[in-house]
Amino acid sequence: MTVMKIFVIGAHGQIGKKIVSKLVAEGDQVFAGIRQPEQAEAFEDAGAEPVQFNLMAQPEDLALAFQGMDAVVFAAGSGGQTGYDMTLMIDLDGAVKSMQAAEIAHVKRYVIISAEFTPDRSRWPRALQPYYVAKYYADEWLKTRTRLDYTILQPGTLVNDAGTGKVTVNPQVGGEITRDDVATFTVQALNAPATIGKTIAIINGSTPISDAVNQK
Amino acid sequence: MTVMKIFVIGAHGQIGKKIVSKLVAEGDQVFAGIRQPEQAEAFEDAGAEPVQFNLMAQPEDLALAFQGMDAVVFAAGSGGQTGYDMTLMIDLDGAVKSMQAAEIAHVKRYVIISAEFTPDRSRWPRALQPYYVAKYYADEWLKTRTRLDYTILQPGTLVNDAGTGKVTVNPQVGGEITRDDVATFTVQALNAPATIGKTIAIINGSTPISDAVNQK
Repeated sequence: MTVMKIFVIGAHGQIGKKIVSKLVAEGDQVFAGIRQPEQAEAFEDAGAEPVQFNLMAQPEDLALAFQGMDAVVFAAGSGGQTGYDMTLMIDLDGAVKSMQAAEIAHVKRYVIISAEFTPDRSRWPRALQPYYVAKYYADEWLKTRTRLDYTILQPGTLVNDAGTGKVTVNPQVGGEITRDDVATFTVQALNAPATIGKTIAIINGSTPISDAVNQK
Repeated sequence: MTVMKIFVIGAHGQIGKKIVSKLVAEGDQVFAGIRQPEQAEAFEDAGAEPVQFNLMAQPEDLALAFQGMDAVVFAAGSGGQTGYDMTLMIDLDGAVKSMQAAEIAHVKRYVIISAEFTPDRSRWPRALQPYYVAKYYADEWLKTRTRLDYTILQPGTLVNDAGTGKVTVNPQVGGEITRDDVATFTVQALNAPATIGKTIAIINGSTPISDAVNQK
């Protein structure tokens, strides 16, 4: 397998950290986008290269961090502790700016972590509707306004159990999936051309991830 | 001038009220979309037809209110009193749902009140950035994802002074404009084919609005 240079946005997040460590384990060269300098050391110890990265910046500035990368992974999220102002600034506009930055830096491959049912407004969980609005318009921008080789991963309800290595792709129903399996799917999707140009919903199931990423 | 049937979303807002009364004065048949039943009487007194209308509904439901209309005007805004959750739900997703509803109801003409500098992220006022994110993605959707005969009006800083009847179109700088003049421009734009398919920034200036709406 070729060594890839991969930039992970939101490397310090719950899924981000797992993506970084799995990519390092695969032998890839991983650039961990972090907001706070004190997050750097842990990534250095883990064999990744920490990079100061702030999604409040303009696309032209973000693009500087993407020079020479083979892929960008968007695993950032404003999180439940901040207000919906940050949902607008990070989950929507920050995501779109990172897509524009990838294009400016001529990085073709772009994988974003979205959420199950994002494409269908009528299925958005009521209490989380504003969050889904942000995710929806970010995903739509990626699909229709960029020429990136994108993959949009839409996991079900995230849980912290141990990874199972198995998923159900595009289920009709809701379901849970471990953050570990979302990270594994992301890492394997980066090497799976069959996932390019696709929006893929995943919950835990019975298909090995290594098969799931190669399904046409 | 032909009598038009026009649906005004956000009719109870500061600009919305002025749009309704100017349209009524022109002899158009005006449907005033309101959220609260107690807002109805004032519109009846003013010669408009109040219609219960809630932007939290799905596009298919909103479309029912648009049947037979010649035009839809989006003058709604979540306003400064609500949280950014409503900015996501109303200013972004509500606006887009109303566009989708217009298409479902086969209403071609659609005018939205946006804000100056919305297209240029680097010029968004710092304290209002999250609001501009919502307006930006709504405007972009209208331009690129619909086949509506749209006009996107982007007024400068809104003030409550008396209308002047005069504007500067697409100024390079920021500036103020009275809400009354924004309403006048909106009403005249509805009858001005030259405004179709255009994004038009306006501040108060020296060009009569009746001329400004007919500029190629």
